Amino acid sequence: NAGWTDLDIRAVDTVRVLAADAVQKVGNGHPGTAMSLAPLAYLLYQQVMRVDPNDPEWIGRDRFVLSAGHSSLTQYIQLFFSGYGLDLDDLKALRTWASLTPGHPEYRHTDGVDITTGPLGSGIASSVGMAMAQRRQRGLLDPDAAPGESPFDHNIWVIASDGDLMEGVSGESASLAGTQRLGNLTVFYDQNQISIEDDTDVSFDEDVAARYAAYGWHVQTVDWRRGDTTTGEGEYVENVDALLAAIQQAKAVTDRPSIIALRTVIAWPAPTKKGTGKSHGSALGDEEIAGLKKLLGFDGRKTFEVSDEVLEHVRQARKRGKEVHAEWQKGFDAWRKANPDGAKLLDRLLERRMPDGFEQAFPTFPADEKGIATRAASGKVLGALAEVMPELWGGSADLAESNNTTMEGQPSFLPADRQTSEWKGGPYGRTLHFGVRENAMGMALNGIALEGLTRPYGGTFLIFSDYMRPAVRLAAIQRLPVTFVWTHDSIGLGEDGPTHQPVEHLAALRAIPGLDVVRPADANETAEAWKTLLQHTDRPAGLCLSRQALPTLDRKEYGDVAGVAKGGYVLADVEDGTPDVILMASGSEVSVALQAREALAKEGIGARVVSMPCMEWFEAQDKSYRESVLPPTVKARVSVEAAVGMSWYRYLGDAGRAVSLEHFGASAAGALLFEKFGFTPEAVVSAAKDSL
Amino acid sequence: NAGWTDLDIRAVDTVRVLAADAVQKVGNGHPGTAMSLAPLAYLLYQQVMRVDPNDPEWIGRDRFVLSAGHSSLTQYIQLFFSGYGLDLDDLKALRTWASLTPGHPEYRHTDGVDITTGPLGSGIASSVGMAMAQRRQRGLLDPDAAPGESPFDHNIWVIASDGDLMEGVSGESASLAGTQRLGNLTVFYDQNQISIEDDTDVSFDEDVAARYAAYGWHVQTVDWRRGDTTTGEGEYVENVDALLAAIQQAKAVTDRPSIIALRTVIAWPAPTKKGTGKSHGSALGDEEIAGLKKLLGFDGRKTFEVSDEVLEHVRQARKRGKEVHAEWQKGFDAWRKANPDGAKLLDRLLERRMPDGFEQAFPTFPADEKGIATRAASGKVLGALAEVMPELWGGSADLAESNNTTMEGQPSFLPADRQTSEWKGGPYGRTLHFGVRENAMGMALNGIALEGLTRPYGGTFLIFSDYMRPAVRLAAIQRLPVTFVWTHDSIGLGEDGPTHQPVEHLAALRAIPGLDVVRPADANETAEAWKTLLQHTDRPAGLCLSRQALPTLDRKEYGDVAGVAKGGYVLADVEDGTPDVILMASGSEVSVALQAREALAKEGIGARVVSMPCMEWFEAQDKSYRESVLPPTVKARVSVEAAVGMSWYRYLGDAGRAVSLEHFGASAAGALLFEKFGFTPEAVVSAAKDSL
Repeated sequence: NAGWTDLDIRAVDTVRVLAADAVQKVGNGHPGTAMSLAPLAYLLYQQVMRVDPNDPEWIGRDRFVLSAGHSSLTQYIQLFFSGYGLDLDDLKALRTWASLTPGHPEYRHTDGVDITTGPLGSGIASSVGMAMAQRRQRGLLDPDAAPGESPFDHNIWVIASDGDLMEGVSGESASLAGTQRLGNLTVFYDQNQISIEDDTDVSFDEDVAARYAAYGWHVQTVDWRRGDTTTGEGEYVENVDALLAAIQQAKAVTDRPSIIALRTVIAWPAPTKKGTGKSHGSALGDEEIAGLKKLLGFDGRKTFEVSDEVLEHVRQARKRGKEVHAEWQKGFDAWRKANPDGAKLLDRLLERRMPDGFEQAFPTFPADEKGIATRAASGKVLGALAEVMPELWGGSADLAESNNTTMEGQPSFLPADRQTSEWKGGPYGRTLHFGVRENAMGMALNGIALEGLTRPYGGTFLIFSDYMRPAVRLAAIQRLPVTFVWTHDSIGLGEDGPTHQPVEHLAALRAIPGLDVVRPADANETAEAWKTLLQHTDRPAGLCLSRQALPTLDRKEYGDVAGVAKGGYVLADVEDGTPDVILMASGSEVSVALQAREALAKEGIGARVVSMPCMEWFEAQDKSYRESVLPPTVKARVSVEAAVGMSWYRYLGDAGRAVSLEHFGASAAGALLFEKFGFTPEAVVSAAKDSL
Repeated sequence: NAGWTDLDIRAVDTVRVLAADAVQKVGNGHPGTAMSLAPLAYLLYQQVMRVDPNDPEWIGRDRFVLSAGHSSLTQYIQLFFSGYGLDLDDLKALRTWASLTPGHPEYRHTDGVDITTGPLGSGIASSVGMAMAQRRQRGLLDPDAAPGESPFDHNIWVIASDGDLMEGVSGESASLAGTQRLGNLTVFYDQNQISIEDDTDVSFDEDVAARYAAYGWHVQTVDWRRGDTTTGEGEYVENVDALLAAIQQAKAVTDRPSIIALRTVIAWPAPTKKGTGKSHGSALGDEEIAGLKKLLGFDGRKTFEVSDEVLEHVRQARKRGKEVHAEWQKGFDAWRKANPDGAKLLDRLLERRMPDGFEQAFPTFPADEKGIATRAASGKVLGALAEVMPELWGGSADLAESNNTTMEGQPSFLPADRQTSEWKGGPYGRTLHFGVRENAMGMALNGIALEGLTRPYGGTFLIFSDYMRPAVRLAAIQRLPVTFVWTHDSIGLGEDGPTHQPVEHLAALRAIPGLDVVRPADANETAEAWKTLLQHTDRPAGLCLSRQALPTLDRKEYGDVAGVAKGGYVLADVEDGTPDVILMASGSEVSVALQAREALAKEGIGARVVSMPCMEWFEAQDKSYRESVLPPTVKARVSVEAAVGMSWYRYLGDAGRAVSLEHFGASAAGALLFEKFGFTPEAVVSAAKDSL
């Protein structure tokens, strides 16, 4: 029993009025859900979640994910109530420049916001990653504690909307969560059956509860639309006790994720707009708000009315937070004392510091004309890091062997009953199996990074970065240290043909602000790329790797591989350092450029070869470095990349030429495609002459 | 009862041997599924589907979608058998340069291939569009025929794999198909529970049949892994009669889509590799193939062994196709005779010819400083085309009102029992409701276009083009006349903030080969953009439209709007035609450039303004036109676009400057964001001076 008093009910009604007023003030936004979910949000923040408003970053806290991010007021008003630092003026500044209350919740921007949400499906999908990370973190630091007894135990709470559950990524994630038996995850599905096009009957007629049961979830329904089920009275009764009982039941079920379908009427109790699409994404209007205030006993002449009594009552959340935090601290201190090694590790992880021996752990690869694929080199790097960097873990979207993402000998992250003959492991394992679900993988990686202690990576083919762009963008926007491993990075993959050959993807990914796109040219550049990107702890990187073997360059002959960290560097030059032409390339095309340089030399043309594994890192260098690599006086320039040329034009200027691929690929051997599509020394030589 | 003789069984075994041999010859590919699905594919092509190998483009044919596109041999071998024009040499040329048998099936490349597949989930998702289009086409041309009696009735058959059903887009589509009651759609789910990471238990433990039942599908399971269910004998019995019975049942259920889960053992009956991940995507090896041939009674010394007797037997498909086609023709001819108007329409649709009155139907908008949003102009264009272009139809991913994608007064495409108070319609309606499912929308649009008669469009916010990139790419690769309507095309959308504001999207979409990205500057450019893109019948276009009002330019003062068709044109110039600087812009930034031009004029600097609504159309013009717009002698250039600058550098050269946005947006009013982020006449003036 939730034991709500009249004061609690007044507080919840205050939420509704604040939501209506805040949207009305700015003139746009989403009042409806914030109003109808007021009892749920209040219950969570005031009675259910283990959080401490005094310390929003507390590692022992439960995590809250507002997957229905458009209803940001659902969270902001509770943050204001609980005392996270938001005040009434912040609510008044909703959706305005530089306010703490932007249109959708933003991680790193507002205290108490654990994740940036807004794109539907993304929050619920990332929550699955959080739930996975919680288990892995416990396994790293406190594996032997009894369930619920570890300071590293906490729960993930999610509020999701109809729209969240329509998006495919939520389905992918739900299937994964079911397979993983994520008992620490509870989703509230706000089943109001209203979206922007009003009644969801026109597009969403499925039985959601049955679908989640099919995924292996524990499913409950709390139907406020049936009225009072004992007396049969009322058209709509917000039975908070029934909701709390369902929550307790969800917590008690620890071998499956839980979903609670809460059947609500959107914008309840707005007199005329409740239950309509209009209340979803528009201000209610003065008249409707006046009606609402009258109904709830608020003064229609006032806006943003919060009584002192209500505020004092809800602010007790700070005191409760302090108490629950103190209680946790005892257990945590005991853990620290009993686990000095674990404590040392935790401190390092919290600082996102590289481990001792980090630099030394990386393999170096001897020069070798035949060489190896950069994906294979990446696999060796991961294997070498396995011991030294326990926080590093990851897997693949069903392409483990192709992506070389498995650290050899490491157990799979799997419930015991999901092990197979190929994959042994356990709940604290390290190798992740995402299935053919690239977007869910990306969102899960984000959730893992948001939990704060570990460093996740996930692999698929570069072509399928298309499926995961929403997740990649959210990694960039949240500045999360996630590594995307994208192999089979060009037509060089060969026979699988145009549907599997990336052409536009390098450019399309480089276009995303805050994402480092790294495409190493050989095995040693691959190791250096991993070394560099792991030391960036405030942004994601995409590592684009070849399927085919690439020559391992002789570093006695060519530029120092340390140049990778600068994004672009001189790999080979003319003797006097004043080349006639600059050949720029990345990845597998660097060797083609080197061959072209030799051919040009025979014709008396001096060419410099610049390896450009990461344009973002190059752009971060100072001007003098950049101009030392690409002297403005040398106008003859050629870019060589088996992809659309778009991202190279900024370096080509008036005279430059792009050796690029401006159409889709074909099904044939990769080496033959390089010939057919003009990624040959001859073609580069010809372009260089053209540019001169 | 399928009535298979020994010869049929020999033919099916021949399929298995051919699949193993073909992959072995090229050294890579996917033999396993082609082997285990041989009985299903044979049954479909020889006994179930209404197709005519003599006329692969026959409009009355059933459509076949190999969603498991990696198993292309499943289809190629049947096309060879049935006599679609593939011969044994084509199978020997599998996955090699210019062969008719590329790694994945390619539409427009191999006769009998109705759709390009490969990216998992895409085929099954597009099949939902095909099924929708079939119903709409029937409604346009033959609405009153009894069920099954119209020449426009046909069925859609899909083979999908575990991987297809893991991808979120298939879930989105399945929910949509259930809501739409697509009784003409049957999916075979090849439930072999093996994917690249072997046993799917590690990632895919859900109850798929229950999930599809929850979507409202008719679900059947045919389990060949239970052995002979009557005698209890055999570890694995390919009970073709049970499969055919399920197919007949699926056809009989016309108020729901059907899925038949066929539980198979991958690569059956390969002696040691059946049931393993190894057989999924690798050649089996000589030894295994020898074992297979021995088991099946084939000569181990021969490859590609097809007996004359088998070939003669299976080629009877041509005769049967001719008969069924002739039978259909009778009904079709009768329909033509009875429906002269319909016949005229059909002929036009088949030729993809614009209707009479097409050019005249477009609205023109009077000059107006306040103007209207280009999304609103687009809505008016659609409304104006409703009568004249019955083949044009579409909708939105739950943003109808925001995207302005509804043709006013047109009925919704909905089963009668799915109508709501907001949306009335029927099974032959025109307004599509996709729900919050952008990728499923895109895939469905592709399927609709593939059916061949209608022109579909679908809307969402430009930011969510990220969710649908896999579909957009497949539209481009298949050269389908699909229009993506992407509104809210910049930070100008305002308060919804960074998760909703596109920044990198214009560049990322322009990077896709074969996609026209069109961003009109005002209402009249919007009409001209629609007019132009509809006349391109061999490629998709993305129309990027503003949320905010844009001034409607006075065309007496500025360049003729017909220039839109050329992608870029001179909107305003200096009197003598030799400007000091060129200002290039698209969409909402064109007006900013025009203001900057006036400010520059006051300082004695002559600026030309080029409106560049579509770089792809501009690049398609001849050099002399392009140089007349952007004279090579004018080196001072500025691009203005509220997005990353990447795609403009090709026009900027050494001296040019990009006024661009190289970071994420923020939550505030759109006009304020334009100021804060430097999309102002002042900033453009400053960049122009910098460039001079």
